[in-house]
Amino acid sequence: MSGLSAAVARQARLTKPPGSLGALESIALELAAIQGVECPVARPAAVVLFAADHPVVRHGVAAYPASVTAGMVANFAAGGAAASVAAVGVHGLPLEVHDVGVDTPYELPPAGPNGARVVRHACAEQAAGDLREQDAMVPDLFAAAFEAGRTAVLALDPTPRVLILGEMGIGNTTPASAVAAALLGRPAADLAGPGTGLDPDGVAGKAAVIDDALRRIAGTAEPLEILRRVGGRELAAIAGAALAAREIGALVLVDGFIVTAAILAAVRSEPDLREHLLFAHRSGEPGHALLLEELDASPLLDLGLRLGEGSGALAAFGLVDLACRLHGEMATFADAGLEGGPA
Amino acid sequence: MSGLSAAVARQARLTKPPGSLGALESIALELAAIQGVECPVARPAAVVLFAADHPVVRHGVAAYPASVTAGMVANFAAGGAAASVAAVGVHGLPLEVHDVGVDTPYELPPAGPNGARVVRHACAEQAAGDLREQDAMVPDLFAAAFEAGRTAVLALDPTPRVLILGEMGIGNTTPASAVAAALLGRPAADLAGPGTGLDPDGVAGKAAVIDDALRRIAGTAEPLEILRRVGGRELAAIAGAALAAREIGALVLVDGFIVTAAILAAVRSEPDLREHLLFAHRSGEPGHALLLEELDASPLLDLGLRLGEGSGALAAFGLVDLACRLHGEMATFADAGLEGGPA
Repeated sequence: MSGLSAAVARQARLTKPPGSLGALESIALELAAIQGVECPVARPAAVVLFAADHPVVRHGVAAYPASVTAGMVANFAAGGAAASVAAVGVHGLPLEVHDVGVDTPYELPPAGPNGARVVRHACAEQAAGDLREQDAMVPDLFAAAFEAGRTAVLALDPTPRVLILGEMGIGNTTPASAVAAALLGRPAADLAGPGTGLDPDGVAGKAAVIDDALRRIAGTAEPLEILRRVGGRELAAIAGAALAAREIGALVLVDGFIVTAAILAAVRSEPDLREHLLFAHRSGEPGHALLLEELDASPLLDLGLRLGEGSGALAAFGLVDLACRLHGEMATFADAGLEGGPA
Repeated sequence: MSGLSAAVARQARLTKPPGSLGALESIALELAAIQGVECPVARPAAVVLFAADHPVVRHGVAAYPASVTAGMVANFAAGGAAASVAAVGVHGLPLEVHDVGVDTPYELPPAGPNGARVVRHACAEQAAGDLREQDAMVPDLFAAAFEAGRTAVLALDPTPRVLILGEMGIGNTTPASAVAAALLGRPAADLAGPGTGLDPDGVAGKAAVIDDALRRIAGTAEPLEILRRVGGRELAAIAGAALAAREIGALVLVDGFIVTAAILAAVRSEPDLREHLLFAHRSGEPGHALLLEELDASPLLDLGLRLGEGSGALAAFGLVDLACRLHGEMATFADAGLEGGPA
C-alpha cells in the first residue's frame, strides 16, 4: 500500500466525521504522498531567504531606497525582522539568508535570539543588468545564482521535510511582474501592482518599465531564459532552490507573489515540481491571483499579507504542522471504543 | 495615550511597509484595544468545550448515534480528539470539557498526555426537551446551563487573554440552526445544512423539524429566550461563557456555526460583546455565512472545517499568537538603523 493509500485509510479511522477537517486533511495527504508514509511530518522544516538588489530601481519602481535591502539583511541577522520573529521565535525553525546580489555594503550586527545565519555568495559580487534595457543576468551570473539556491537547499542539515523559501529585494515586484507577464503572455498592466507602497502613478510607471522589458525579450519562450533576462538573482536562486527541494523530497510551502513567479518558471521547466508545492497564501499584490490560477493553486490563507520574506508561508506553517499532528496523533474510532467508524 | 493609539503608533515604527502584515496587524490592534496596552499578548489562553445531548435527535436529524457525545467526552479526557491534539499537544493550552447535559452515562479513561479536565455540572442531570415539540430548556434549566458556562470562564486560573469556546453534542446543528433562523427571521431552509454528514433528504427532514420549532415559538423576540426555547444546554453555556469572557477582559476567538449561533444570541443581548470577538473561520456548514454577515465578521480562515470542538478556533489560534509576537518582538526602524520609518 502506498503512503497516500495508507494515509487515506487512516483518515477514515480517526475520531471525526469524514472530511470534517477540510483542507487540514488535504495537507496531510499531500505530505503523505511526498513522504511515502502513513503519518507524514512537517518537521524538520527550514526557512531560506534570498536577498538581492535590482538596477531597475533607478526608474522609480520602488517605494524604498535600495539600501534597505542591505539594512534588512542586517535586521534578519540581528533577529528583528518579521521573518526572524515568525521563523525562529514562534516556530523554532532555522532561518538562513543567502545574499546572492545585495549591492550596498553592510556589516552584520551581533545575532539576537531570533537571528539568522547570513551567507554571501560569489554571484553577489557580479553586477546585474537593468532589466528595462538589458538582460538582468548574463548567462554565467544566472547559472551562479540558480546554483546558489540549489546548493543552499542541498546543504541543509537536517534535511527538511518542509521548506519555506522567501525573498528580500527592494524593487523586486518589478522583475517578478515581468517574469509573470512573460510566462503568462499578458501585458504588464495585468501584473504590476503597488508592491510595498507605490501610488497609482507609480504603478503606471512601473508597468511602462515592464512593458519595455517585455518588448526587449519578445519571442523568448524558454521559462528559465525569461527568468534570466527579466528576473533577478534572488528569483533565479528561488527557482534553483525549489528544484533542489524536489530532489530531497521536501514540500515547498510557497509564499507570495515574488516566490510564486520564480516557482512558475521552475514548474514550466520541470512540471513534476508541482506535486511538491503547497501554496501558503494569497498575497495582497493583485497579480498573484493570475499566477495562482495558472498553477491551479488554492492557497491556505488570504490575510492581505504583502511583505515578502517568506512571511505568508510562515503564517501558514502552523497549519501544516497542525495538519500532520492531527493526522498522526488523533485516536481512531477503535482506540476510543466509538461507533461511527468505517465498516 | 490609549492602548490602541500606542499600538497603532508602534506598528508604524516596525521594520515593514505600512499595512504589509494585513490581518495580522488588525488582530494585534483588536487585542491592544481590549487589553489597553501597546503590546498585547495571546497567552495565557484557554480552551473550554461544552457538551450536551439533544432529544430532537429522535427525529433523525443527526448522522451519528447520540451515544457518541458521551464517547467523545471520554475521548477528550483521554486526549485522542482533534481538540485534544490541537489544544494541548500543538498549542500547549489547557483544555476543559464541561458536561452540561450528556445523557449517556460514561466513565472517564486515564488521561493521556493531551488529556482534558472534565467537569460534570448539575444541570446535566435535568432532562432537556425535544425542541420540535416543547421548549428545549425550562427556565431554571436554561439559567443553570448559562451559569455553568459563566462560572467555567470566571474560574479559569490564570485568567486567559484569549478564550476558545467550543462544543460537542450529536445533533446540535439542529438547535443552532433553529436559534439562527429565529434570530435572523429566516426560514429553516436558509440555515439547515448537512452537519456532520446528512444526505439531502436528511437535510430536508431536519429543516422540517426546525420549521416546526420556529412555528412553536413564533413571536418570541428576546434573544436569550429564543436560545432557551429552541437551543440546547451547551449553546446556553456558550452564551454565558462569552459574556463572562467580556467581564474578565478576554478576547473570544469564535469557532464555527454552532458557537456563532449561540454568540449571536449573546451579542443581541449585550451588543458590547461584539468588540471582544474575533472570528476564527468560515465553517463548511452553509448557514454560517449568514451568521457571519449579520455579525459583520471576516473570519481569518476558510478551510472547509466542519468538525466543531473549537477546532476552527484552534486552527486560527496560531495566527493570533503570531500576530502578537510580531507586533511585540519585531525591531523598529530606529532599532535597525533603517530608512523608511515614519517621519
